[in-house]
Amino acid sequence: MHLNSEQIQALNLKQRIHLINSITGIKPANLIGSIDSQGQTNLAVFSSVVHLGSDPALVGFVLRPPGHVPRHTYDNIKEMGSYTINHVHPEFAQQAHLSSYKFDKNESEFTQCGLQEEFLPDFPAPFVKESNIKYGLHFVEEIPIKQNNTRLMIGEVQEIILNIIPQTPDGGLDLELSKSLGISGLNSYYKFNLIDTYEQPSAENLTRFLSN
Amino acid sequence: MHLNSEQIQALNLKQRIHLINSITGIKPANLIGSIDSQGQTNLAVFSSVVHLGSDPALVGFVLRPPGHVPRHTYDNIKEMGSYTINHVHPEFAQQAHLSSYKFDKNESEFTQCGLQEEFLPDFPAPFVKESNIKYGLHFVEEIPIKQNNTRLMIGEVQEIILNIIPQTPDGGLDLELSKSLGISGLNSYYKFNLIDTYEQPSAENLTRFLSN
Repeated sequence: MHLNSEQIQALNLKQRIHLINSITGIKPANLIGSIDSQGQTNLAVFSSVVHLGSDPALVGFVLRPPGHVPRHTYDNIKEMGSYTINHVHPEFAQQAHLSSYKFDKNESEFTQCGLQEEFLPDFPAPFVKESNIKYGLHFVEEIPIKQNNTRLMIGEVQEIILNIIPQTPDGGLDLELSKSLGISGLNSYYKFNLIDTYEQPSAENLTRFLSN
Repeated sequence: MHLNSEQIQALNLKQRIHLINSITGIKPANLIGSIDSQGQTNLAVFSSVVHLGSDPALVGFVLRPPGHVPRHTYDNIKEMGSYTINHVHPEFAQQAHLSSYKFDKNESEFTQCGLQEEFLPDFPAPFVKESNIKYGLHFVEEIPIKQNNTRLMIGEVQEIILNIIPQTPDGGLDLELSKSLGISGLNSYYKFNLIDTYEQPSAENLTRFLSN
């Protein structure tokens, strides 16, 4: 099937949303935890977390336009300057997904979805106790994307909590063994199978591969 | 294990790169195809493709700073205004990974890595013939990220080619059946198992879930 731009535009909005949300490929499933100055916590599932750099350790995520969604996560990050990102595991995937329900500001998704808060002594935002890979960030910059009024929120990693440290041969985290999850489209959750860890491409392994 | 910001900074650069590239969770494996005005094609694997919006259909990816990497993809996109994004499948994952080797400008990664070019009549950039889910984009905007000199490249989806259309119950693409791949860290490739497609959260299914 080939769709040109007119045919893409002619899809009904629901079809287009599901298709365009799928064609970028797998997306990471993460819960973002935040808190306001009154101590009211908030938790929301995001599939748009993206690595921006390791030195300094910068991570971004994309927020939908104001008006489309309650802005508790955005307001809390702007108010307190900190937030957490927590991997989602199969045991609480459905609870994580329910966090996208539009709860009132005075209802914490932690309580409503049955997840536990965890705090570090000197970091204000709540972590998800059930998550085995999680980190706290200081908010650094908000970049408006003028084409559709979304925004890229950038944070610097300040605290990392690893309850398990499964490693791939090159020293990364093994996301199969960590039981981290991904999302496609809006509502589909996946687990992973590591198929291979390749060598960093070099003239030597390129020649070896191509001669096979 | 808990690492604070001093301890994160004290990791050697290789450890920090592998860790920070892993903690964002799974990343989609995509090949970006481009061409210059002389007809020289280019192909490079990227793990930073991110959905920005469905109406209009906007997709971003993050490019490392000038100087860190050859800028063939960047130069071609700026010169021609178009590029393609192609899902990676297990049959050519190692070839896709090798595309990150620093080939000379006059060497096409298509030829060097043994992948085939595919063109649409009215779209200049090359698709990867072996990929079953792929799309062509018109370049829209380059957003500099000043903290680390990376840039977010934004394109609007113009052409979609789906050789297979496996669907999840909600109408998205089933990335297990499409055999699309993901990446963690720098060199590890994963396939996916769909664990569930949940309903869109509503007051009704929230009550039903919480009463179970």
